[in-house]
Amino acid sequence: MNTFGKIFTLTTFGESHGAAVGGVVDGMPAGITIDTDFIQHELARRRPGQSHITTDRKEADQVELLSGVFEGKSTGAPIGFLVRNTNQHSKDYDSIRDLFRPSHADYTYYSKYGIRDHRGGGRSSARITLSRVVAGALAKLVLHQQGISIIAYTSQVGDIHLDGNYHNYDFNLIESNPVRCPDPEKAKEMEALIEQVKREGDTIGGVVTCVIKGCPVGLGEPEFGKLHALLGAAMLSINAVKGFEYGEGFAGSSWRGSQQNDVFLPANTTNQSSKPKAQSNHSGGIQGGISNGEDIYFRVAFKPVATLLMEQQTVNKEGEPITMDVHGRHDPCVLPRAVPIVEAMAAMTMLDALLISKTNRL
Amino acid sequence: MNTFGKIFTLTTFGESHGAAVGGVVDGMPAGITIDTDFIQHELARRRPGQSHITTDRKEADQVELLSGVFEGKSTGAPIGFLVRNTNQHSKDYDSIRDLFRPSHADYTYYSKYGIRDHRGGGRSSARITLSRVVAGALAKLVLHQQGISIIAYTSQVGDIHLDGNYHNYDFNLIESNPVRCPDPEKAKEMEALIEQVKREGDTIGGVVTCVIKGCPVGLGEPEFGKLHALLGAAMLSINAVKGFEYGEGFAGSSWRGSQQNDVFLPANTTNQSSKPKAQSNHSGGIQGGISNGEDIYFRVAFKPVATLLMEQQTVNKEGEPITMDVHGRHDPCVLPRAVPIVEAMAAMTMLDALLISKTNRL
Amino acid sequence: MNTFGKIFTLTTFGESHGAAVGGVVDGMPAGITIDTDFIQHELARRRPGQSHITTDRKEADQVELLSGVFEGKSTGAPIGFLVRNTNQHSKDYDSIRDLFRPSHADYTYYSKYGIRDHRGGGRSSARITLSRVVAGALAKLVLHQQGISIIAYTSQVGDIHLDGNYHNYDFNLIESNPVRCPDPEKAKEMEALIEQVKREGDTIGGVVTCVIKGCPVGLGEPEFGKLHALLGAAMLSINAVKGFEYGEGFAGSSWRGSQQNDVFLPANTTNQSSKPKAQSNHSGGIQGGISNGEDIYFRVAFKPVATLLMEQQTVNKEGEPITMDVHGRHDPCVLPRAVPIVEAMAAMTMLDALLISKTNRL
Amino acid sequence: MNTFGKIFTLTTFGESHGAAVGGVVDGMPAGITIDTDFIQHELARRRPGQSHITTDRKEADQVELLSGVFEGKSTGAPIGFLVRNTNQHSKDYDSIRDLFRPSHADYTYYSKYGIRDHRGGGRSSARITLSRVVAGALAKLVLHQQGISIIAYTSQVGDIHLDGNYHNYDFNLIESNPVRCPDPEKAKEMEALIEQVKREGDTIGGVVTCVIKGCPVGLGEPEFGKLHALLGAAMLSINAVKGFEYGEGFAGSSWRGSQQNDVFLPANTTNQSSKPKAQSNHSGGIQGGISNGEDIYFRVAFKPVATLLMEQQTVNKEGEPITMDVHGRHDPCVLPRAVPIVEAMAAMTMLDALLISKTNRL
Repeated sequence: MNTFGKIFTLTTFGESHGAAVGGVVDGMPAGITIDTDFIQHELARRRPGQSHITTDRKEADQVELLSGVFEGKSTGAPIGFLVRNTNQHSKDYDSIRDLFRPSHADYTYYSKYGIRDHRGGGRSSARITLSRVVAGALAKLVLHQQGISIIAYTSQVGDIHLDGNYHNYDFNLIESNPVRCPDPEKAKEMEALIEQVKREGDTIGGVVTCVIKGCPVGLGEPEFGKLHALLGAAMLSINAVKGFEYGEGFAGSSWRGSQQNDVFLPANTTNQSSKPKAQSNHSGGIQGGISNGEDIYFRVAFKPVATLLMEQQTVNKEGEPITMDVHGRHDPCVLPRAVPIVEAMAAMTMLDALLISKTNRL
Repeated sequence: MNTFGKIFTLTTFGESHGAAVGGVVDGMPAGITIDTDFIQHELARRRPGQSHITTDRKEADQVELLSGVFEGKSTGAPIGFLVRNTNQHSKDYDSIRDLFRPSHADYTYYSKYGIRDHRGGGRSSARITLSRVVAGALAKLVLHQQGISIIAYTSQVGDIHLDGNYHNYDFNLIESNPVRCPDPEKAKEMEALIEQVKREGDTIGGVVTCVIKGCPVGLGEPEFGKLHALLGAAMLSINAVKGFEYGEGFAGSSWRGSQQNDVFLPANTTNQSSKPKAQSNHSGGIQGGISNGEDIYFRVAFKPVATLLMEQQTVNKEGEPITMDVHGRHDPCVLPRAVPIVEAMAAMTMLDALLISKTNRL
Repeated sequence: MNTFGKIFTLTTFGESHGAAVGGVVDGMPAGITIDTDFIQHELARRRPGQSHITTDRKEADQVELLSGVFEGKSTGAPIGFLVRNTNQHSKDYDSIRDLFRPSHADYTYYSKYGIRDHRGGGRSSARITLSRVVAGALAKLVLHQQGISIIAYTSQVGDIHLDGNYHNYDFNLIESNPVRCPDPEKAKEMEALIEQVKREGDTIGGVVTCVIKGCPVGLGEPEFGKLHALLGAAMLSINAVKGFEYGEGFAGSSWRGSQQNDVFLPANTTNQSSKPKAQSNHSGGIQGGISNGEDIYFRVAFKPVATLLMEQQTVNKEGEPITMDVHGRHDPCVLPRAVPIVEAMAAMTMLDALLISKTNRL
Repeated sequence: MNTFGKIFTLTTFGESHGAAVGGVVDGMPAGITIDTDFIQHELARRRPGQSHITTDRKEADQVELLSGVFEGKSTGAPIGFLVRNTNQHSKDYDSIRDLFRPSHADYTYYSKYGIRDHRGGGRSSARITLSRVVAGALAKLVLHQQGISIIAYTSQVGDIHLDGNYHNYDFNLIESNPVRCPDPEKAKEMEALIEQVKREGDTIGGVVTCVIKGCPVGLGEPEFGKLHALLGAAMLSINAVKGFEYGEGFAGSSWRGSQQNDVFLPANTTNQSSKPKAQSNHSGGIQGGISNGEDIYFRVAFKPVATLLMEQQTVNKEGEPITMDVHGRHDPCVLPRAVPIVEAMAAMTMLDALLISKTNRL
């Protein structure tokens, strides 16, 4: 259950304070130029300590590709990779060895497996998502060649949220601020809010919006491989995610059909070969579980991280009350670093769907 | 891609106007008493024509179990089943043979496969969800024996929504009205709204809430088999679903960690064996992707169905403009009939997770 | 575990004396003309009662395709199908309800599941292989269009075996005799031997040889999807199969490398585009787990069926000794009817590998 | 397709001359004591250069476990591992960069992927089987705790083969000679033969026999997860394997049913709880695809390795004739080093089947 995908797959391993975090990418199409700088660049976007509003843990997060690449190109063989953990402060966690931290996976892991690596959250740590970023970067290299782009950004932090839809924003501004929000004014407000909750030892949630452009018609496999179901499963597998919606999502539940339907426009008379175009895209680029060639867009809800830098009440394995006072290095808000993870999961999902769609007809 | 699950699996087949709709359930634990009346009862909850606010299509939807049951008990062999389609009016669809209906799967299926069964939506019809209800009923029989119950209800239709959380409602009232809403007053308002949009030839969306009680600790398999990711994928595979959230969901994104954390309470001193209990359940019964023994609850957003009983503009395969005037039998609102489908998908997901969890330790 | 394949899949259901035997084929490429006469013809080759050397059970084995076909062509949707059981004599099996027949699956099924459908072997009956023949026929329709042919024949019955390799035989003669052996003289000997063991109430084993022609280069996915590993798994899943070998197989284990290597010949100087050709094909058309464009050939060993029409000693569930005297309708030798099953499994395997190979490069 | 298994899985990566060979084991039951010395000991049995009849390549083959183990026990998290390649002589392979060696995977890999890592066979090298030995050792640790043992040995090299069945041999003698044959006299003959073919620059094939003891009743999942089909697929995925048979195998094809049936004996009157016992085990411990509690035994045929230390004719990518004179470090016979690989694959298969069988009943 540590494998994602069907044809293009990622199998991951690693814990926060173990020797390394890594994985195996299988099903990478052969002949793709592997730009290792790009992979490292994507990791840098997820890296801890990248700004004053993320955790202070410093990690170079240098990836080593161990196989599957020959003379700069993918060979079709699996790509093994790892990132060594170098800056663990395992001692910081001695005090929680026998505790169950509130809203963490401590209790559930311990109950399920009868054993738990308590150091830094072990396997349940968000650190293990770096494997996804590596695999996502590989997928992006293929998708880029196919004209498919995937862009995510922070659209909400706490109560501060973007008002318009994605068309209103200049995606070039996303990386211009540490929050990864394409609205510079809102970005400043979000940053200030994150700084405030950090000062208070608290945390705050938010929403990431993701847009996929250039997707061909025909990706997604009904009945259980619907493209949005695959995207949803991918997003919900990210740590701290509590919700997923695409197209008009939850808000569209209160609409009427006559408002939400995307009415087709007649084909351009001078361009008979063009595919039908609708006057709107409330569907979010997917109809009947299959991409229709329009932009795919969706939103992902993140809860506030559970680790607080303040006193909390909890219990130990014996059920005895304990006052817990965590000192460590934690993100007050995961949103900025979640953006590349959302993109990575979307990229893997799209590439897998693209490859599977090659088998629909001979 | 027409198979759901890993150990307890459902593989489906069928189209709206084909000979039959059915499937194969594999991985059914052996020795379970198969209550065929219960299966038929669940189908009746999904059946068209069950009330004045659903489609007029009349179908007995009589299921035949073809295998896997011997002397009233499951044998561990796959359970094949089918429901004959008996009340197709395929002629009703002749006029749309060469059209692409707005926000339907007509265009995407045709583009993907180069061929399309246009009759009643073919494979993309919601009629095929009856296979899920059969499989879900089988799963419920097992879960019931394990003390796990799954209950869903309509919590929103259009702008009318329940205000409180599920604790405030008496689940016994859910089946007391055709909307399947546990609040009788709201149910009436919802019913009136559905009648109104039906009169207008329009449709309306809504939200289903689902609650799972009695789930043991330890279901769900990180990293990619997190319980809520599996539930989300299951729900998003249902026709017309546009969003999924669990626990505090999207709304919780604006909370602080100190508000959302579920703080453990000291164990009852007279009952040392009891599992830790928290003072809240904002997590929604799942932490780190693994069930913690609390109630699991989630919400599923449905868009308004795309088929309107009014004139709509669209195009044909040549991209020429066409005015479409559908006469047929359609649901103005899928919510009432979606409730048992949500339950069925939840039941399959939970049973699969339960079976897999048996392999965690020896 | 009742599903075969990864992209082109078959999920089966049914027992010998249940209502029906059938399955669901998923991943059938869209747009293929479905020749139902051909499917029925393949079933007739597996049908009981087809000659005096097979079982006397009479079954029309009429298949009904329930979905996935529209106006004579595959739509890409799953193809559900069933064959009703019509000629069960369940009473014949009353006497074995509490017995474990020697070398049957009675004891293992009962122990594994705690329950057992004793009628005609239940799920462990070879009758359920008819689902494979239906799916194999569908696969053959696709492979035929791609220029790939699959031919099997009986090459050994008891001690009577063909001496030369497959090049020495005229495949057109295979269906000219009830044994399905391309050597008419040997066929007569085999037939006589089968008649003799039948008279004695005994049974006899044998070997089926299978040859695949027209396979393109590049099918099979190392490391665990090697083409011959997939073929082997497919064959070993057939009832009564005890062995599989391809190329020079077991006999080649005593050769030297210098004898077994297939030495490449220089390309034809007038045909530079042709692929390299070797002077031999000891490899059996697969090298490193990937097809090389040469004929693929393999052999499948069948044990004598366990059901004897003579007195046998055995025990009941209490372990008490019982003398068993079976009267029923059984094959004295499965080989003639196994031939189409071997072909069907090979066809499914090859089509699945062909579809997967489409994802190797973009 | 580089993943083996369903619940207990191994995903591998690596090439002969890449940075490292390794993999990820997922589904390892939690709480198992991880004996790293034992894993290293198993690797030593596969290690090149272990005796004068294996390749001269010297590799320490030191495995590093990267995750999934905490304080000496498995945690239920995936176990990532790697073995660095340290003694590559990639230059040795420069001369074959543009050649297709006879009966190697050079031509098929190149055709399939359009690119090929020619160094030491790249991904198709038998070196990558060391990942299987690591995973197999982990599986053995679990099986040992469950009382299941797996022992393989060389039963044939060239024309020299053991005559009796496995009961006649003392398994303690297997590791007493470099051939891994339990018959010391035959072992000497085999060793002499291997030395002779080595001197001649040639290679020789053989057969490995494997015996599984202590297997509980009920492993294996019909219809396509039959235990012997899984074992067969596992064995056929090993480099150079050309055949698999279990129980009486190919030889049994010429037997009669009355000879091959395993007749049950009455239960011991003083021990009514014991399971039925048969007077023979021609079935090989598996009936109807499910283990029956008797010894499981099977044979695996290996061809002579294709790399000869003598002049061979072949062609280059342009199809031009080339005389190839390989100097390198190669095994004249893979059998001695194949023994631990066969055991490893059997161990993984059995553990996976054991875990899945936990889901048959609740």
